[in-house]
Amino acid sequence: MTDFAATKAMFDLPEGVIYLDGNSLGPLPRSTPARLDSMLREEWGKLLITGWNKAGWMAQPMGLGDRIGKLIGAEPGHVAMGDTLSIKVYQALASALELRADRKVVLSDNGNFPTDLYMAEGLLRTLGAQYELRIVAPDEVEAQITEDIAVVMLTEVDYRTGRKHDMAALTAKAHSVGALTVWDLAHSAGALPVDLAGAGADFAVGCTYKYLNGGPGAPAFIYVAPRHAGRAVPALSGWLGHAAPFAFDLEYRPGTGVERMRVGTPPVMQMTALECAMDVWDMASIEDVRARSIDLTERFIAGIEAACPDLELASPRDAKLRGSQVSFRFADGYAAMQALIARGVIGDFRAPDIMRFGFTPLYIDGDDVDAAIAIIADVMNNNLWDRAEYKVRAAVT
Amino acid sequence: MTDFAATKAMFDLPEGVIYLDGNSLGPLPRSTPARLDSMLREEWGKLLITGWNKAGWMAQPMGLGDRIGKLIGAEPGHVAMGDTLSIKVYQALASALELRADRKVVLSDNGNFPTDLYMAEGLLRTLGAQYELRIVAPDEVEAQITEDIAVVMLTEVDYRTGRKHDMAALTAKAHSVGALTVWDLAHSAGALPVDLAGAGADFAVGCTYKYLNGGPGAPAFIYVAPRHAGRAVPALSGWLGHAAPFAFDLEYRPGTGVERMRVGTPPVMQMTALECAMDVWDMASIEDVRARSIDLTERFIAGIEAACPDLELASPRDAKLRGSQVSFRFADGYAAMQALIARGVIGDFRAPDIMRFGFTPLYIDGDDVDAAIAIIADVMNNNLWDRAEYKVRAAVT
Repeated sequence: MTDFAATKAMFDLPEGVIYLDGNSLGPLPRSTPARLDSMLREEWGKLLITGWNKAGWMAQPMGLGDRIGKLIGAEPGHVAMGDTLSIKVYQALASALELRADRKVVLSDNGNFPTDLYMAEGLLRTLGAQYELRIVAPDEVEAQITEDIAVVMLTEVDYRTGRKHDMAALTAKAHSVGALTVWDLAHSAGALPVDLAGAGADFAVGCTYKYLNGGPGAPAFIYVAPRHAGRAVPALSGWLGHAAPFAFDLEYRPGTGVERMRVGTPPVMQMTALECAMDVWDMASIEDVRARSIDLTERFIAGIEAACPDLELASPRDAKLRGSQVSFRFADGYAAMQALIARGVIGDFRAPDIMRFGFTPLYIDGDDVDAAIAIIADVMNNNLWDRAEYKVRAAVT
Repeated sequence: MTDFAATKAMFDLPEGVIYLDGNSLGPLPRSTPARLDSMLREEWGKLLITGWNKAGWMAQPMGLGDRIGKLIGAEPGHVAMGDTLSIKVYQALASALELRADRKVVLSDNGNFPTDLYMAEGLLRTLGAQYELRIVAPDEVEAQITEDIAVVMLTEVDYRTGRKHDMAALTAKAHSVGALTVWDLAHSAGALPVDLAGAGADFAVGCTYKYLNGGPGAPAFIYVAPRHAGRAVPALSGWLGHAAPFAFDLEYRPGTGVERMRVGTPPVMQMTALECAMDVWDMASIEDVRARSIDLTERFIAGIEAACPDLELASPRDAKLRGSQVSFRFADGYAAMQALIARGVIGDFRAPDIMRFGFTPLYIDGDDVDAAIAIIADVMNNNLWDRAEYKVRAAVT
């Protein structure tokens, strides 16, 4: 069994804060500052350029890929780190479309995180007018997977509501009509067990600053199924995805397997911080995390519904159908969330009316949930949010 | 006048090392570790998700862009940071090609850094078979800028030899036939004065881990000339380049000016480290850096040519025609460079036979150059490089 008191002790959480926004940016692992200091002074400072070999910087993206791969059911050696999630979406979708070059339609849903749709839009515009991005409602996706679809591109867990798609079923449906799948695991990796290999997923991408706790701007990951990894020719064909980057050939030759999805020089500080975060994951089982996440979210929903009649549940009531967050609708949700933050309960707001709370068992426990419910009830039932200062929108919400 | 003793004191350079590889990875500024520690503990640790507003993380990419813009002659507000140089090449070239959609040929040269050519190859493959990447010798570029060329894509300073293109002349030639330009400033930014606005450059990109000292994997930059910045529609259309990222619209609308070239969540640790590096640049004038760089490289060439008859100068002899590096050809250059590194003179090797030495006045002075010459002469004239251990190739050269 995972010792959640031990994992909680590995994070540096501020006094007086109940942090229910680890689904947006995970907190600081206690080991990160000292490790970064050592990377800066002992590696960069002393090894200088030789750090790429001697400190293993060049190997970090594949080593970290394998550590994350264990949490998402990827075959070893089939996950590479780098860039941002947006860039990885572009890469995955471009390769999937090239593997299904006879079809021109990408199917997605309006619960997908917008940048996935924007990147698809940019790629399809680059590919030409014959391509179409077809966006349907999440519950229409299955019926809309038809024989003209080249790629089904979905985020498994909806960033607003926490609604979870059935990856295995939708992947099977896609394959039954000859389509490929690109799964965005931004709200899945570290939130719940994912079985990419078992589901037969073709491509997957995700970020590491949410449930994985890699820090602000932590690198993204990309998974390519073994059956495709040697065939997909990258659209973003950068030198670190070349078969021999330091031969400095004039022509691109893709590297082995998913390593060809590497592009440019990796961000060593961010990679190193992510390694510290993954050390915490070495102490946890993702199945235990999921079981505890369900306990915490059930407790939260029951408590809020009992205490706060103004809040309307926006997440699926059935725990099997949601990720590790709970969202409630409230017309003045932005102001209400600012009032909660002022009281030390940090969640976030997503337009137009979603108050979003993430549950992250590595460092949030039942006492935190109970304390949060009490504060939310006080703020909501006494209209403490109804102040002008809470209605001024910040640049980043 | 720049106080180069003062700038040298701002770097943490290892004892016994003469670092002539700052053209590949600049050294650690002394202020970086404490600033990173503060960013981790006080910002990420205490502010958590609110750091995006309260610590100014979301504003870093444009703030840093302006600081770098001053070194490269960019108009304020027209440089954005993010991603890697490879990604920025793709963005710039895609936008340039869209602005000249009636033409299908990209002209580059075989002295360009390979990843620029690889990224162009991937982009042109995505755009379709009607596109052509035409690669000529560097000294043929001017004559090959003909009326069928859409975009001239060049690296100003050759990574192997240090040969410098005439940006103003080639840009003028490109414009005279209706072509646009994409300039890679990887070996220019922080190495010599660049005048993007004066030259009329259309797009420029560069990295910040070489002469700018941002650290391993530091973010890249992109410049878009004001006359194009509101017209270029990004191919990599990520949410942070959207006009209103936190509106979470389903459709992409490009942001204002070059900010539309932002893609995904910025790497805050790397951005923060780059800020420390730019503090050193606040104390320096790029004109002073260039004057001293010429002194150092002239001194090095004269010293090596006098002492090492086996080494053949690969860089232009005329300082006006080269960047801030000096390269020599030697058939066993790889082994010779390993022998030099073992003696504390760190340069690097580029296939097939280039021994490359970078001169970075912020922290390298005339005494360093003299000491390096003496060691190189000893290693070369006594064949100290001719040992099996120096001939084993590392993963990263």
